Amino acid sequence: MTALYDVAAIGNAIVDVIAQCDDAFLEREGLVKGSMALIDPARAASLYDVMAAAIEASGGSAANTVAGVASFGGKAAFIGKVADDQLGHVFRHDMKAIGCAFTTAPLIEGPATAQCLINVTPDAQRTMGTYLGACVELTPADVDPAIIEAARYSYLEGYLFDPPEARRAFAKAAALCHGAGRMISMTLSDSFMVDRHRGALLGFIETQCDIVFANEDEICSLFETQDFDAAVKAIAARSEIAAITRGEKGSVVVAGGQIHEISAYPVEKVVDTTGAGDQYAAGFLYGLSQGRPLPVCGQLGSLAAAEVIAHYGPRPQVTLRDLAAQNGL
Amino acid sequence: MTALYDVAAIGNAIVDVIAQCDDAFLEREGLVKGSMALIDPARAASLYDVMAAAIEASGGSAANTVAGVASFGGKAAFIGKVADDQLGHVFRHDMKAIGCAFTTAPLIEGPATAQCLINVTPDAQRTMGTYLGACVELTPADVDPAIIEAARYSYLEGYLFDPPEARRAFAKAAALCHGAGRMISMTLSDSFMVDRHRGALLGFIETQCDIVFANEDEICSLFETQDFDAAVKAIAARSEIAAITRGEKGSVVVAGGQIHEISAYPVEKVVDTTGAGDQYAAGFLYGLSQGRPLPVCGQLGSLAAAEVIAHYGPRPQVTLRDLAAQNGL
Repeated sequence: MTALYDVAAIGNAIVDVIAQCDDAFLEREGLVKGSMALIDPARAASLYDVMAAAIEASGGSAANTVAGVASFGGKAAFIGKVADDQLGHVFRHDMKAIGCAFTTAPLIEGPATAQCLINVTPDAQRTMGTYLGACVELTPADVDPAIIEAARYSYLEGYLFDPPEARRAFAKAAALCHGAGRMISMTLSDSFMVDRHRGALLGFIETQCDIVFANEDEICSLFETQDFDAAVKAIAARSEIAAITRGEKGSVVVAGGQIHEISAYPVEKVVDTTGAGDQYAAGFLYGLSQGRPLPVCGQLGSLAAAEVIAHYGPRPQVTLRDLAAQNGL
Repeated sequence: MTALYDVAAIGNAIVDVIAQCDDAFLEREGLVKGSMALIDPARAASLYDVMAAAIEASGGSAANTVAGVASFGGKAAFIGKVADDQLGHVFRHDMKAIGCAFTTAPLIEGPATAQCLINVTPDAQRTMGTYLGACVELTPADVDPAIIEAARYSYLEGYLFDPPEARRAFAKAAALCHGAGRMISMTLSDSFMVDRHRGALLGFIETQCDIVFANEDEICSLFETQDFDAAVKAIAARSEIAAITRGEKGSVVVAGGQIHEISAYPVEKVVDTTGAGDQYAAGFLYGLSQGRPLPVCGQLGSLAAAEVIAHYGPRPQVTLRDLAAQNGL
């Protein structure tokens, strides 16, 4: 089958609500800096109530990744659940506007489109409270074979490992993917998610997933170790390719017994780290889809991450294809 | 009566949808660069459909102005109509978050919260299509005497001179204002609006309005002249104070037979001119409310305008009170 898409992603369809705050605000609200907490509608309302004036922008981890892929010039598709409301229309518009296929039917009755309340401190850390709303209504029926089978690489957002129906959707996607001779990848998303589902995750990685994205915290949590090198060895033994991001220390890519260390791109002023991991995955997957060597894939990821942390908002503000060309990639 | 507010404004309650575009896009869509066009729901849908991925942020001309007043440390109130929908909640949240009183009841049935579709070209010009939705349902009943009578200065958004009920709301506000011994101000907002209502506007300015804000185009349109100096003389004869903005040429303030020329503040890179006039009015009115001399009021206006055009979005991103202090104002 011809590949219609370079990357197809399954993830939470979320609109971000981004405001600035200070450390005292996080303390007053009992928020752990840098973390992502799932919150219910009541807590979402009370947190929003005390937040500063905000901007709204389409977000969602895997959705940000396909936005990055599209910005590199790749063909991208997204599967995720919005409600039939104003923010759902915003999310759908933005996907279409970046040239990403997004055909998942909206949820007609039920919870509202998901929102991620993001408070950014002056040190550029983002602290997130996510009300998942319509997202968790994603089911295997939403995983369209015509998309997954036609994508060179599929990409699963770890946050969706929580809801049982969405996890079944992952299993369906993996089966479709492998049936079509494609590769499937996953990001671990969050060390708390890893902690909640360690056994099931390891099983999924060993039997159904080819490529794993994670940051240091997440990969160490997966193997219950403080020893980064040990965690890297452990994932190398279990997945075909793993790409582990380490913030300003760059990233480590392991595959076929080889370890590639990739530097981070320098950033003049880090403004908002929201979306760094998502854009790393975008560059990496785009590189893979174009048959580039693994170290170049890692460099493309680092470059995309450097662009997104230099401004507010989780998606690229320049054309990554041009940025890559300017940087000799 | 004690002044509870420094500035109370009556205006359109709008959420801005801001995207980047190129000149070819404006041409394809038949949009006149730098203009504001009122559009119906069908055109709003078709224009949004072809716009790039966007961010959403609370806007509205007079609402931006009170946001600026609040950022200077002034006490502000806003009167305007949102619907009871997600974007209406966003607008209300942001007003509350900046410390601005906003108690106008939402529209329960009827059109959605207003949206302004803003396309920003690389030369930082913004081209706007506004779907007014719930805004035009503002009536005299929404003009709360407890707010207008308690504000040192009231401020009317010229865009609301179009709907007859809103114009009656202006007349009510002016009567309340003067009855309480306060002053009322107005911005002409848009040269097309001026053109549509020249006679009624001149009548309103001569009999009910004390302070007029306008840009060069608007004031020249009001007096049907190409001669800026003649237009300035004409407005000086008809209003107690007039403040006319001229982009990078600064502004001209006329009052009591005196003309003050105010320089613009230098801006390293102009990114998006959305909100420049609104923030000029914010600085000027805040200065007046604190009893500052007119040239200082103009400088405060120029400073606030310079801040807002250096970034995307129509409201200040720094605390204008601090910025004023840093600039010796």
